[in-house]
Amino acid sequence: MNIQTLKGFRDFLPSEARKRQYVIDILRKVFESYGFEPLETPALEYEEILLGKYGDEGDKLMYRFTDNGGRRVALRYDQTVPLARVVAQYGNQLPMPFKRYQIQNVWRAENTQKGRYREFLQCDIDTVGPSSPMSDAEIIQVAADSLRKLGFSKFKMLINDRENLDFTKKDITITPDKNIKAVIAIDKMKKIGKEGVFKELETYFSKEQAVSILEIIQTLSPTNRLKEIFSLLEKLGIDQTSYEFSPTLARGLSYYTGLIFEVEIDGYSAGSVCGGGRYDNLTGMFAKRDIPAVGCAFGFDRIIEAMEEFKLFPKDLQTTKVLVTIFSPQLKQQSIEIASIIRTIGINSEIYLDENAKLEKQLKYADQKGIPYAVIIGPDEAKNNTVTLKDLKSGTQKTIQNDQLINELD
Amino acid sequence: MNIQTLKGFRDFLPSEARKRQYVIDILRKVFESYGFEPLETPALEYEEILLGKYGDEGDKLMYRFTDNGGRRVALRYDQTVPLARVVAQYGNQLPMPFKRYQIQNVWRAENTQKGRYREFLQCDIDTVGPSSPMSDAEIIQVAADSLRKLGFSKFKMLINDRENLDFTKKDITITPDKNIKAVIAIDKMKKIGKEGVFKELETYFSKEQAVSILEIIQTLSPTNRLKEIFSLLEKLGIDQTSYEFSPTLARGLSYYTGLIFEVEIDGYSAGSVCGGGRYDNLTGMFAKRDIPAVGCAFGFDRIIEAMEEFKLFPKDLQTTKVLVTIFSPQLKQQSIEIASIIRTIGINSEIYLDENAKLEKQLKYADQKGIPYAVIIGPDEAKNNTVTLKDLKSGTQKTIQNDQLINELD
Repeated sequence: MNIQTLKGFRDFLPSEARKRQYVIDILRKVFESYGFEPLETPALEYEEILLGKYGDEGDKLMYRFTDNGGRRVALRYDQTVPLARVVAQYGNQLPMPFKRYQIQNVWRAENTQKGRYREFLQCDIDTVGPSSPMSDAEIIQVAADSLRKLGFSKFKMLINDRENLDFTKKDITITPDKNIKAVIAIDKMKKIGKEGVFKELETYFSKEQAVSILEIIQTLSPTNRLKEIFSLLEKLGIDQTSYEFSPTLARGLSYYTGLIFEVEIDGYSAGSVCGGGRYDNLTGMFAKRDIPAVGCAFGFDRIIEAMEEFKLFPKDLQTTKVLVTIFSPQLKQQSIEIASIIRTIGINSEIYLDENAKLEKQLKYADQKGIPYAVIIGPDEAKNNTVTLKDLKSGTQKTIQNDQLINELD
Repeated sequence: MNIQTLKGFRDFLPSEARKRQYVIDILRKVFESYGFEPLETPALEYEEILLGKYGDEGDKLMYRFTDNGGRRVALRYDQTVPLARVVAQYGNQLPMPFKRYQIQNVWRAENTQKGRYREFLQCDIDTVGPSSPMSDAEIIQVAADSLRKLGFSKFKMLINDRENLDFTKKDITITPDKNIKAVIAIDKMKKIGKEGVFKELETYFSKEQAVSILEIIQTLSPTNRLKEIFSLLEKLGIDQTSYEFSPTLARGLSYYTGLIFEVEIDGYSAGSVCGGGRYDNLTGMFAKRDIPAVGCAFGFDRIIEAMEEFKLFPKDLQTTKVLVTIFSPQLKQQSIEIASIIRTIGINSEIYLDENAKLEKQLKYADQKGIPYAVIIGPDEAKNNTVTLKDLKSGTQKTIQNDQLINELD
């Protein structure tokens, strides 16, 4: 048997899992400070709930199968379609506006050679109900606040309005169903440049139309709606250097109907770490009527990567702060008591679980686990009501009275 | 299209999701205070990793399918087998003892009529490496500490040693492969009574053997190992009324090799809320050699249910503490500023997202969401630098100076 995980799936050993938890805890705290509440939906849904909601590509990449009861089921592919289902299913049970966050894994059978994962965490916030510019501005505010609280000081929020990219209303006779092709092409501006976009436009439109589309983009200015949102961002106290109107920002998804935005971290080039917008027609998939909605999703893996690059994780992210060693079976009781006292004051402390292990082995364990302090209680210490506190980073140690230990660790 | 979730799968709307998060946060904090570190493993594994590890019943209830790449895969069925894989796969990369906690969903195609779920959260702690009685005692200590921190004051930890139930070593000629049948029968003592157990024993053993088995159980006393563990529990300061030797505790799983225990909450009859034990041969499934291990799992859904029954959830578990209403579009700026100030001092506050909504509608929203306070800033308040603070539970309100608001809410 091969002892391995599936391609695109990952184990997170403690050192990684701790970092993930650190980011999740901060995001949750920020989301909740604005009144977003947690929602959980199942990993498996009826296939028909998810199928056809993400385009052909989505249907292809979705994990789908027949369960033991003969039902066609599919694994969660994103958190927006389940949200739309929840809004349709529970209707009046939900407070409106319904502000929810959702932090769960999704599964996509992506090509892993592109550095993509098949199981990855999504962190979404969405506000369902209001169509106000204030609800748009709040999503941008929460995105900015989240990134600041994670430690990012320099980032740029690129903002546009899908109305700007509705070429059916301009003088170049483009049909609504083809408009998304233009949007998808423009979305690649950064990646393939103006010429590349022009080439892609030419495969769907006449040369004249393609020229017109690119010309139109260059003359775009903020819509009235965007002007209102920008004015609100100012009122909300968002640093004005952290956002800007970006006429070429398009976002690939078809369901956006108004505001769209993406956040790029200065000096991190792997792509945007957050993106979203307004989608006023999505809940209509399941509900009898459309309910306006706006939201965004954080790219969790990119955030972790960027935080690593910028060294934004605290140095003392280890779980245990103090290892209480056991000098000998006879002196175990003293160690048990000291570990308990340290824990009582809220400091994570563990006792070494083999009373016969050599001190050297115990200290090596602390080192491997990144535990910064070790406590040693040998015969002398026991006799004098003292402990030896060893700082494992500096290698220094001192013997102190038991009742001094708490002050030293605090 | 039917807008519904699959049978045995659940949405957790905010009021439920908050409670779940509350419990997870407490468990994590307790686990980490003893040096247990987080581990995450994938939802999907190669089928061969999981298959055959949980008996025929497990193979039957496991969600298994062929993925898009033709691989046979299976959804996580528990967290112990993935732990054994991780220990085999990463070997020396892991600190030893390896103390990890894991809080993830598992999937089992259970009969939902029995009130069972097909997706449910498991919370496990395990210590891999040591075989010391201290490592056994610590798991029991963490279980007790967790339940106390959740608010349970009266519970009983029933403790036994599988050695006590090894009838192959007694004088009644039972073969090792049949011994587990006796264990499984004894495990049902509470549910089906002594006579029921006797009947079940008779289907595998002679009448004489069945009589002997029941007689042996009545004469059992703590093994030397258990005596050591009990002595350690005393040293660890565990309340002596909270645990006892239970010769009929058997636990159904075949892999236990030593200590076994279960925790029952006084006055909660749906079953044990935590159970575990020592399993020294499990990692040998994947690794070249057996590595001793001991651990336990918390029954998350039962804990939630018991906490509901005993009203152990804090009353102020709502996400938002203050709704800042918007009196009119002209007075929006004042509300934005107040909401921001409240948030800055660490109190979750949200602003109502429709500046045109009637005050009544805004207050109804606060009520629906369980928000305890509302702030109103009308023309008079704006002029006088005051706010009106409404206590939505009592219905009382008072108008105070802006700078008094923080003291009132704190």
